[in-house]
Amino acid sequence: MKPDGGSLIGFGSGGPGGAIFQAFDPARGTHLEPSFSSASRDDIERAAQLATAAAPVWARLSGAMRNRFLRAVADNLEAKSPDLVARAMLETGLSEARLMGEVARTCGQMRLYGETAERGDWLDARIETALPERKPLPKPDHRSMLRPLGPVVVFGSSNFPFAYSVAGGDTASAFAAGCPVIVKAHPAHPGTSELVGRLILHAVRDCALPEGTFSLLFDAGFEVGQALVKHPLVKAVGFTGSVKGGRALVDLAAARPEPIPVYAEMGSINPVFILPGALQERSAAIVDGLHASSILGVGQFCTNPGLIVLERSVAAEQFVRDLAAKLNATPEAAMLTPGIQKNFISNTAARSRQSGVKVIAQARTSVACGAAPIWFETEAINFLGTHNLSEEIFGPSSLVIWCRNGTEMLNVARHLEGNLTATLLVGGNEVQGPLELVDLLAAKAGRLVMNGYPTGVEVSHAMVHGGPYPSTSDGGRSTSVGTRALDRWTRLVCYQSFAEKLLPPELQSANPLGLRRLVNGEWTQNSLG
Amino acid sequence: MKPDGGSLIGFGSGGPGGAIFQAFDPARGTHLEPSFSSASRDDIERAAQLATAAAPVWARLSGAMRNRFLRAVADNLEAKSPDLVARAMLETGLSEARLMGEVARTCGQMRLYGETAERGDWLDARIETALPERKPLPKPDHRSMLRPLGPVVVFGSSNFPFAYSVAGGDTASAFAAGCPVIVKAHPAHPGTSELVGRLILHAVRDCALPEGTFSLLFDAGFEVGQALVKHPLVKAVGFTGSVKGGRALVDLAAARPEPIPVYAEMGSINPVFILPGALQERSAAIVDGLHASSILGVGQFCTNPGLIVLERSVAAEQFVRDLAAKLNATPEAAMLTPGIQKNFISNTAARSRQSGVKVIAQARTSVACGAAPIWFETEAINFLGTHNLSEEIFGPSSLVIWCRNGTEMLNVARHLEGNLTATLLVGGNEVQGPLELVDLLAAKAGRLVMNGYPTGVEVSHAMVHGGPYPSTSDGGRSTSVGTRALDRWTRLVCYQSFAEKLLPPELQSANPLGLRRLVNGEWTQNSLG
Repeated sequence: MKPDGGSLIGFGSGGPGGAIFQAFDPARGTHLEPSFSSASRDDIERAAQLATAAAPVWARLSGAMRNRFLRAVADNLEAKSPDLVARAMLETGLSEARLMGEVARTCGQMRLYGETAERGDWLDARIETALPERKPLPKPDHRSMLRPLGPVVVFGSSNFPFAYSVAGGDTASAFAAGCPVIVKAHPAHPGTSELVGRLILHAVRDCALPEGTFSLLFDAGFEVGQALVKHPLVKAVGFTGSVKGGRALVDLAAARPEPIPVYAEMGSINPVFILPGALQERSAAIVDGLHASSILGVGQFCTNPGLIVLERSVAAEQFVRDLAAKLNATPEAAMLTPGIQKNFISNTAARSRQSGVKVIAQARTSVACGAAPIWFETEAINFLGTHNLSEEIFGPSSLVIWCRNGTEMLNVARHLEGNLTATLLVGGNEVQGPLELVDLLAAKAGRLVMNGYPTGVEVSHAMVHGGPYPSTSDGGRSTSVGTRALDRWTRLVCYQSFAEKLLPPELQSANPLGLRRLVNGEWTQNSLG
Repeated sequence: MKPDGGSLIGFGSGGPGGAIFQAFDPARGTHLEPSFSSASRDDIERAAQLATAAAPVWARLSGAMRNRFLRAVADNLEAKSPDLVARAMLETGLSEARLMGEVARTCGQMRLYGETAERGDWLDARIETALPERKPLPKPDHRSMLRPLGPVVVFGSSNFPFAYSVAGGDTASAFAAGCPVIVKAHPAHPGTSELVGRLILHAVRDCALPEGTFSLLFDAGFEVGQALVKHPLVKAVGFTGSVKGGRALVDLAAARPEPIPVYAEMGSINPVFILPGALQERSAAIVDGLHASSILGVGQFCTNPGLIVLERSVAAEQFVRDLAAKLNATPEAAMLTPGIQKNFISNTAARSRQSGVKVIAQARTSVACGAAPIWFETEAINFLGTHNLSEEIFGPSSLVIWCRNGTEMLNVARHLEGNLTATLLVGGNEVQGPLELVDLLAAKAGRLVMNGYPTGVEVSHAMVHGGPYPSTSDGGRSTSVGTRALDRWTRLVCYQSFAEKLLPPELQSANPLGLRRLVNGEWTQNSLG
């Protein structure tokens, strides 16, 4: 499989006219063939019309059929994973092992969401049967459930060319929820995007689904993405990327005549609070664990631990010296794109010039797109008074905050903006009763990690990958990873006094799908009376 | 009980300085004592600070305690319902029977949401237990659930002085979800608002809850409401009212440095599609039913049937003549406020001058704030080409759309904006198989009513009172009535590898609350292991 360089508009291809761009090999510093054409206005319109035509078909599609389709996509990705990974290695500089693992994760995610769709419990089906004799007014029969929103636009992210891109979590959850998907490919890995897109379209054909099920649009800049978010036929948007990029799309969607939801996962500094007991018990293990978590993917993870908060003590100073030594010995690695590297260099340079901030570790960099860890330290009082120290630096850089005591640690926690994660490293004798720090962090993050590290986002029923603003645009009311991710692409619909034949099977009295439903206030899998 | 005219800031009262206003008796056309003072900047700040201080206490409050509080509020309202209804009759012109019913509904709603809070199933507690031996990576323990957002601002609406006002559905669901509430009272019934607010505060004291649990702010204009929506300590907003008012608040909230959700229930024309079979079977009954639904509350219901769509036929023309005769004989009644009446007069006057629109019924009005039904008709082709015919006229006015055939009826359905409800009146032989009209309407409304009328919103587990924009600001992803209303005031929080003692009881292995939880993919009420 080799990419051709054109957008995929349903079963057709994109027309001419858009700006041309090429992928870039960050490890070698060279451009890659072929050239890609940005989607034209016509391409965008055609993709939106096709998706809209497919939407009612998808809304009626059974969970079993959605599952069959998602399994077909996963099977296709697995069958072609050597081709996919080979191209992704060139476009991202990431290792084969990492990318093979990411394909596996992406396929597992697709299958889990497919199973969830087939099982149907997530639809929150509820029935209240009629009480025709009730006084003063009869009670009608009401049956309600989640229904798909319609065409969803997904923005691929740069840092996970599979798991958060063309066939990633947003796409998989939108399909599972019953929505057609239009992906705006990330220009950092267009070839990988095209190959994955073609495999999705093979599954569309194999499952005899409508053409508008899926389209993939390229964009050298921002125009195509903006046009998609503003398009009146688009009903929701998924995005993973920077606060600046995400907020721009959120604002665009909010200003539409009909506002639509944008689920943007954006910036997070993922604070790690280290209590004294943790260092007493296992300082060396924490050096290793925190180091490994912080350099994973060259720090280009949304859950990268960017803020390390501890009380100053002899043991804590030794811990930071040990960690710094390990960071200084960390080999450089290529960042995903020259743009990301450029931002990393300028942001770390700016931070190193800030008053009250000191560099504590800085490994050497030599190759074109390379980066190595740069860590900083500052006093809590300086952090509390300097807003931009709360801003994420995307890449292998973290900031150590020195607190004079536990009260100052609590103040740092209170001062935090929203985050995807907050981590607490504690000693065994520090978890005997309620901790105010836990309450404070629960108000600031979507996932609280105890005695672990924030990187590693399990795809499961219980995962929450979302948090208060600015980590996500919807303030952590939803998650972009885990089976609750399906909910984002739905709205509630209630049927009052409906004829059985006109009800969706999920709400029919006979319960033909065997769903767990809330019937007159009790959860049951039984059919009605 | 008599109102004093001051805002209630926790257990204290509002300071001086705000604009003064009085309530108005629309039936008699006179102002009512006492004068009310709009809240000052200091009042707003104090209310926000108190609510913020109360938020962590409320976040930890057990469901049982929230239930106890909501029952105490309901008991207080019932005990004082004669006083409340007497004042509300003066301020709204609504009948004693209607208002007594509304108090009962409000109390029932509070108790149902309280029970739901105590039962706790709505929290969607999920647990994935650890797999330390899993390859390539161990699986950590993850436990997640919904947690309260923090201080919520509720805007009382004019048309339901109890059920959608100070102690209405937004307030009750926010308390049940664990959030302190600040109400911005509607200036149309400030005395009723103050009396209800004081009864809520009695319950706060009786249950020994923090002072910041509840505040009530008056506002002669829009300033106090706007300041509340912009206040950085406010985390979410509930609103019921016009599209213009709702959208202004939504835009304000979206433009904050930290955007917050505004759950605004706004405009809905609630289309009623009448198929030929329905008129064949029971024309006279539909005349009675539609007439009664349309004049309920002088048409000042968010579910008022504002658009009647039918195919032209001899039977349909006779039906409309019969309905018009009944409308013409309908006695006038006082509208809620002079402002609402003024809008009703100018909007109906403008519609009667529109090209292709004819008045088919117009009953007489004589008293100060009175209104009587005014109905219009137009051809489908004119409706499809004239955008403002899709706009809601708040009050007893509806528009009959004449279609030439079933295809044109489908086109009208396709053309609709979002609505809270869509109604389908059909004959027995018209529901033998899938109806395209049902699919179209399911994409346009939150509740589909078959062979009934849209007014009457049951408070239950299955109700959906929400719909695509502009009927609600969040596109119908949530409901403002029914137990799912609690979800709006929450976000997801996940605890990874947490010590049992630091977990909320809902997620502890022993399952001390006996919750239904999703444990490793299976719903169970059992404790772990």
